[in-house]
Amino acid sequence: MFPKNTWYVAATPNEIDEKPLGRTVCGERIAFYRGAENKVAAVQDFCPHRGAPLSLGYVSEGKLVCGYHGLEMGCNGKTVAMPGQRVGGFPPIKSYPVVERYGFIWVWPGEPTAADESKIPVLEWYDHPEWAYGGGLYHIACDYRLMIDNLMDLTHETYVHSTSIGQKEIDETPCKTVVEGDSVVTSRFMNGIKPPPFWKAALRGSNLPDDQLVDRWQICRFTPPSHVMIEVGVALQDHGGYDAPNDKKAYSVVVDFITPETETSIHYFWGMARKFNPKDKALTATIREGQGKIFAEDLEMLERQQQNLLTYPDRKLLMLNIDAGGVQSRKIIDRLIAAELAAPAPATN
Amino acid sequence: MFPKNTWYVAATPNEIDEKPLGRTVCGERIAFYRGAENKVAAVQDFCPHRGAPLSLGYVSEGKLVCGYHGLEMGCNGKTVAMPGQRVGGFPPIKSYPVVERYGFIWVWPGEPTAADESKIPVLEWYDHPEWAYGGGLYHIACDYRLMIDNLMDLTHETYVHSTSIGQKEIDETPCKTVVEGDSVVTSRFMNGIKPPPFWKAALRGSNLPDDQLVDRWQICRFTPPSHVMIEVGVALQDHGGYDAPNDKKAYSVVVDFITPETETSIHYFWGMARKFNPKDKALTATIREGQGKIFAEDLEMLERQQQNLLTYPDRKLLMLNIDAGGVQSRKIIDRLIAAELAAPAPATN
Amino acid sequence: MFPKNTWYVAATPNEIDEKPLGRTVCGERIAFYRGAENKVAAVQDFCPHRGAPLSLGYVSEGKLVCGYHGLEMGCNGKTVAMPGQRVGGFPPIKSYPVVERYGFIWVWPGEPTAADESKIPVLEWYDHPEWAYGGGLYHIACDYRLMIDNLMDLTHETYVHSTSIGQKEIDETPCKTVVEGDSVVTSRFMNGIKPPPFWKAALRGSNLPDDQLVDRWQICRFTPPSHVMIEVGVALQDHGGYDAPNDKKAYSVVVDFITPETETSIHYFWGMARKFNPKDKALTATIREGQGKIFAEDLEMLERQQQNLLTYPDRKLLMLNIDAGGVQSRKIIDRLIAAELAAPAPATN
Repeated sequence: MFPKNTWYVAATPNEIDEKPLGRTVCGERIAFYRGAENKVAAVQDFCPHRGAPLSLGYVSEGKLVCGYHGLEMGCNGKTVAMPGQRVGGFPPIKSYPVVERYGFIWVWPGEPTAADESKIPVLEWYDHPEWAYGGGLYHIACDYRLMIDNLMDLTHETYVHSTSIGQKEIDETPCKTVVEGDSVVTSRFMNGIKPPPFWKAALRGSNLPDDQLVDRWQICRFTPPSHVMIEVGVALQDHGGYDAPNDKKAYSVVVDFITPETETSIHYFWGMARKFNPKDKALTATIREGQGKIFAEDLEMLERQQQNLLTYPDRKLLMLNIDAGGVQSRKIIDRLIAAELAAPAPATN
Repeated sequence: MFPKNTWYVAATPNEIDEKPLGRTVCGERIAFYRGAENKVAAVQDFCPHRGAPLSLGYVSEGKLVCGYHGLEMGCNGKTVAMPGQRVGGFPPIKSYPVVERYGFIWVWPGEPTAADESKIPVLEWYDHPEWAYGGGLYHIACDYRLMIDNLMDLTHETYVHSTSIGQKEIDETPCKTVVEGDSVVTSRFMNGIKPPPFWKAALRGSNLPDDQLVDRWQICRFTPPSHVMIEVGVALQDHGGYDAPNDKKAYSVVVDFITPETETSIHYFWGMARKFNPKDKALTATIREGQGKIFAEDLEMLERQQQNLLTYPDRKLLMLNIDAGGVQSRKIIDRLIAAELAAPAPATN
Repeated sequence: MFPKNTWYVAATPNEIDEKPLGRTVCGERIAFYRGAENKVAAVQDFCPHRGAPLSLGYVSEGKLVCGYHGLEMGCNGKTVAMPGQRVGGFPPIKSYPVVERYGFIWVWPGEPTAADESKIPVLEWYDHPEWAYGGGLYHIACDYRLMIDNLMDLTHETYVHSTSIGQKEIDETPCKTVVEGDSVVTSRFMNGIKPPPFWKAALRGSNLPDDQLVDRWQICRFTPPSHVMIEVGVALQDHGGYDAPNDKKAYSVVVDFITPETETSIHYFWGMARKFNPKDKALTATIREGQGKIFAEDLEMLERQQQNLLTYPDRKLLMLNIDAGGVQSRKIIDRLIAAELAAPAPATN
């Protein structure tokens, strides 16, 4: 179960620049492509003629052309033309509200009439001179909520990422979880500690010394349906920690868009927006590579955890204080799903 | 569902020359091998002793010997001998009518008493001085009827095979479908067009110029259960098209034997019989390689179409004029299946 | 179905020396590791916190530490500690009786209170100056009883292992099966025969001539739940056969511990204990390599047999005299399973 009347990140723009992209979001098979005036479009990945996947076709003059028999599909799900055919009576396929913004393709897999572009979260770092961004995409065979749990409880860094961002102090420092309307914030502040290897490198990238004690912070923010933005950083000790001036800290935001593919698989868009040394493209590449390795460490754990949960479906899991972020996030998700189920069913085809 | 009281191509002779072949046809697991006097035989691929697949064994003096404990199986499904055992009471396994003819192994997976060798289609080009033949075998995860649809509507060539045999004129020229008893013929004639790359090469192979306008034809003939023979060719313009003399045209027959393995997979025996330059073996190899590449282009489309249809089982497909060949072929298949179901059930073991 | 109140070989010691091992035995997912004082321990492979597999973690001071959030599990299935948590109320997980003995890790997957170490079979060759041992592990997708059948009827050697240990005389010499309480013994004695290639090499390894006639024996002994020890060997003719003095024969025991993973897959621990030339480590390696190749020949046959049996579940198999060893072994297994089912159900979590 997932909320469907909401925006999910479906792809990055480069994925649809050359040819259409077939991708399943919340159980919906969707063909994404650039239609008229290069504007992104999204329709059911099912040709109304014979059921071929439209994503195997190509785009011609803004229309998605089926690669099997040349049916031309419009971005509204209505067939525009087909060689030698009158297409007026062809049954429509679903089309999906879709927006290109902030370097992502956003799709609304639910009831189209409810789609509201203003609800797309604002990514302040996008195209901003003080920020730099790098990221990637992983496919992981787990329930999207396991990834939310993972990101809302960073004590796992001590164990899963022990050689890069993990350190014993994460475990030893209590976190605090606050629910603010539909968002959940779990924060942890560690002062006067040694920076772990990833942050040593970030300090060097910020032209700061890496051999001094630092204050470190982690502020995880969940917003529906399944976005987790994590403010992370270190400041040289005794300069104000999180509030230290920019030239005394390395500050960035871990970006996590978790898009359900099926009940037990996700498209995981991860990245890091940093507010230090933004013009250094080599640093962006280095950080992206390092983060990619770190996040790959979660893959096996989450997939094996998912298999274990499927094997023991009746086993109750614990909900400790460190799990509060995930627990509260799931409550919000459950409430949104319940609200959708209670609403009148939209017309589908 | 497939007709079972009929002949299917199960293999090519070389596949059973060295050792037995295990292959599933219409859901029946069958061991094919060369028995007494090198005559092809086909029995259930299940040793009555302990259920080992007989196709893992070997042939000795015409008997199929189980590779596990040496049971010797006769071509009639009755155990002939087993070391140290009296085999009179061993339960028989199924045996299948099977014939080697025209360069193929033909099997009758249904009621054996109804098998009639005279119903095997005549392949006139086989071992004929005016003809040459080359072909291959693909395994495809789709319903056999999707491949019949594919071959009875060649407008897909324009899209799927755009770099070899496709051209816009196929789309633009109406086809005509005629039902003749249990066969269906869909034909299209395109006059005064430029030959596409595959036919340019064929013209050169026929020692004809490849830079002139041609008349091109496609005559697709379905016969039960799932054979599709397609007369194809080009003639230099103004020499009578399909009826042009042999030295003014390149004429061949695309050969398609579609053998269901399961409800959603096939053994696809494809080939081309050509009536030009038959002694040129290098040309045979070149055409075979080119055709193999072209037919491989259909694979992904058909497998993905199959997955889409399984995902949306209730979605009705369109039946346009271009689909008439497939639609009419399916009607004949449905009639044959219904007739088999209405017949008294044969004894099975 | 398998007996669970019994000892199975779960692993070899080297498999848990470096890190924990996750392995499924009789459907139970188990994490094996070296706990306090290097003593082997076995607990359910499921962290009570969030369901992560404990086998992905590591061992610290004798405790198994979950690799996700650092929960420390004790060898009795009770949580010992977790950073920042009071663990007294954490639900326990299953722990399993487990013993390291004779070069194997033995586990009791059933009711723990019934576990009795004295029931572990005695392997007399272990750490014995007159013996040498080498072996390996294969994973095979078949019911464990198919492997018991395989080993209790060695006529298959003639066919499956025709180039190494097979010879026609095995087929031609009747075997004799005797049930002794809960064990089954099937034996065959072949006198005055030529040794096949494997035994020629063994004779040379024993510093005996390989060009003379020999007496050969095979004494297969099944004991519950699924152990098959096979006394095998050859003696130079006219020296007493099985009872010949050590310097006239090559005598060894084929060791087979068949551990069910699921209903249709096994961990197959195979090996050979030999009583000739025990100090020759190169010979041990050579024999191990040869035996590994021979046993790999059974893999495809058993997996394909399993598939055939799943396809034809209603088909009755034959039970011939050569099958008596397997048939009698299965009767004992059935009796043990029935006794377990009749016993009061143990408490589980």
